[in-house]
Amino acid sequence: MKEALDLAELGRGTTWPNPMVGAVIVKDGDIVGRGYHLKAGGPHAEVMALESAGEQALGATCYVSLEPCCHDGRTPPCTRALIDAQVGEVVYALADPFPAVAGKGLAQLREAGITVHGPLLEKEAQGLNAPFLIAHTKQRAAVRLKLALTLDGMIADRDGQSQWLTGPSARTEVHRLRAQHQAVMVGAETVRADNPRLTPRDRGNVGRSEMTRIIITRGGLQLDGSHLLEEIDEHPVWVITTASGATSAELVSAQKQGVQILEAASTPDGFVDMEDGLQQLFQRGIVSVMCEGGSKLAGQLLQDDLVDRMHIFRAPKVLGGESGRSGFSAPAIDGLAQARQFHRIATKTHDEDIEEILVPESGLWTETE
Amino acid sequence: MKEALDLAELGRGTTWPNPMVGAVIVKDGDIVGRGYHLKAGGPHAEVMALESAGEQALGATCYVSLEPCCHDGRTPPCTRALIDAQVGEVVYALADPFPAVAGKGLAQLREAGITVHGPLLEKEAQGLNAPFLIAHTKQRAAVRLKLALTLDGMIADRDGQSQWLTGPSARTEVHRLRAQHQAVMVGAETVRADNPRLTPRDRGNVGRSEMTRIIITRGGLQLDGSHLLEEIDEHPVWVITTASGATSAELVSAQKQGVQILEAASTPDGFVDMEDGLQQLFQRGIVSVMCEGGSKLAGQLLQDDLVDRMHIFRAPKVLGGESGRSGFSAPAIDGLAQARQFHRIATKTHDEDIEEILVPESGLWTETE
Repeated sequence: MKEALDLAELGRGTTWPNPMVGAVIVKDGDIVGRGYHLKAGGPHAEVMALESAGEQALGATCYVSLEPCCHDGRTPPCTRALIDAQVGEVVYALADPFPAVAGKGLAQLREAGITVHGPLLEKEAQGLNAPFLIAHTKQRAAVRLKLALTLDGMIADRDGQSQWLTGPSARTEVHRLRAQHQAVMVGAETVRADNPRLTPRDRGNVGRSEMTRIIITRGGLQLDGSHLLEEIDEHPVWVITTASGATSAELVSAQKQGVQILEAASTPDGFVDMEDGLQQLFQRGIVSVMCEGGSKLAGQLLQDDLVDRMHIFRAPKVLGGESGRSGFSAPAIDGLAQARQFHRIATKTHDEDIEEILVPESGLWTETE
Repeated sequence: MKEALDLAELGRGTTWPNPMVGAVIVKDGDIVGRGYHLKAGGPHAEVMALESAGEQALGATCYVSLEPCCHDGRTPPCTRALIDAQVGEVVYALADPFPAVAGKGLAQLREAGITVHGPLLEKEAQGLNAPFLIAHTKQRAAVRLKLALTLDGMIADRDGQSQWLTGPSARTEVHRLRAQHQAVMVGAETVRADNPRLTPRDRGNVGRSEMTRIIITRGGLQLDGSHLLEEIDEHPVWVITTASGATSAELVSAQKQGVQILEAASTPDGFVDMEDGLQQLFQRGIVSVMCEGGSKLAGQLLQDDLVDRMHIFRAPKVLGGESGRSGFSAPAIDGLAQARQFHRIATKTHDEDIEEILVPESGLWTETE
């Protein structure tokens, strides 16, 4: 099963919206077939493993890191492939939370006379696909929040200047993390201040290379001249806004340049309701999104308990209280006892900067990667 | 020499205002004597090593981590002891920056016919006594700044509540650091908000146990009922204030309860001029001080470039921009390019909290401890 989990890892960043899955066929103590899911629409791990095993699959044991699917999606169900190949036994790591599968896959195998064992290494399998599991459990895109902050928690100086806060090594790591997601998300102020591209770098030449770039704005947003429009054919740009924002002249004009406008519910203060926004992303097939700021969006996600994993890149600089913008601009809470509590799961060093990796108290997304 | 530096380390926290010094006497390749400086007024390392070597010191080599002293202080000069013992050779790690010694000690030895070699392992010897060297070079107490901060750089919530931000393991480490200093320093607001004791814990029963507790206040400060007064006979309380603060009824009353008032220059804004305050501490024999906040004092020390080493204890909590007090309350600077830059020399883990250890760009105080 460890081998199956390692194979699953080969699909990191390319399987969206599907989970990473690996499968190993074992006969008489030898591995006779291996497979993993590379990208949506492509073969599933079990099918690839069965193909590589050929006739040796007959009576063999299939170790698979996720319950085999039993529905006709973009590929035929894996349960049928396993039954047709007449494997003797299936060992699974984790039941699939996807409602169309969720235990039904295992039941089908048992009905066909195949012995089913599991869950085995369930925790590891959960860690591997935490954002997928979070998304299906909460019916919204899972959120990885990345912020670059000073020692005193500032995201930018008073003029909004924030570029080059951290060094090259930290920025390279941000690109590596970004490449693992289907979508990257920022607030409108970050677009105005930094004019970012938000494209993936170094995705290699396997699987999905498309990166959906999502901007959150309560009102209009001038995108003429934005770097975001330059590669819009390859990497779509979506704006999530409120009803009033959606009708703004600026966004109507952006729509003509290929930008897709999503209208979400408003908070009482007139901001985009981020829970609704993330639900809409999920409905459109976005399972996980990497949020890269700014401070208002980070504060809102924090306040609404929508941060599933946080990476803080900390530069050894101090701006001082009156010289910066706090990384989390959020309405006041009632004192220290109500502070949001995270678990620190790792600290990494990137030259002079450090990366703090944190998850909320009940967080699942704790694997190292 | 490595052995001499290790011996010097045995005096950590107890030698103030003297530096840590270790000495080893070597004869025919064997160590025949060892010594280290334990506390001011007690024997110096060379004398202790010579005593333990006895007659074997004759013609031997003395390795010592700091240039031997040549002046009559609280103990007779070490150069005389080395000359009287008729050692053949002295190897030193670092010249003494103390003006009464500074090269004169080495010259005396040479005049007496002793061969002198050095500096050997100078960088290590500098690291060992960095605060001592900083103090003598800058003629002011060296400052170690300790702050406990949230992920977003907050030192406290809006009501000033800051206790129990970090966990027990981090707090134990703070006590260990505090015990290495002669004095601990806080701003008046920290006294008001936390009513701290600022006493050393676990100093053991060697050397100096006295801890001078220093409070910085621009104006008056009500100390009636303060825990600071409870152990004032053992651990003095000094208030550094401005001319107007010194005459306040509250401080005049505190003086009657044993509090010592030091009047320092004012900044144009009416705050205590911290450079002058630290110079006054140095003149009174305080070589190093551990500053434990609050945010105004930290901001001022930062602004005036008076932070020689910084330990940030970072709790995995977020307060959010409008719910907290920034750890560094400082007047605004001109953008990110003017941010104070530090070097991160270490990151340690204390349960859920981390400790970031930083020094300014030109900082000397880089040894691990």
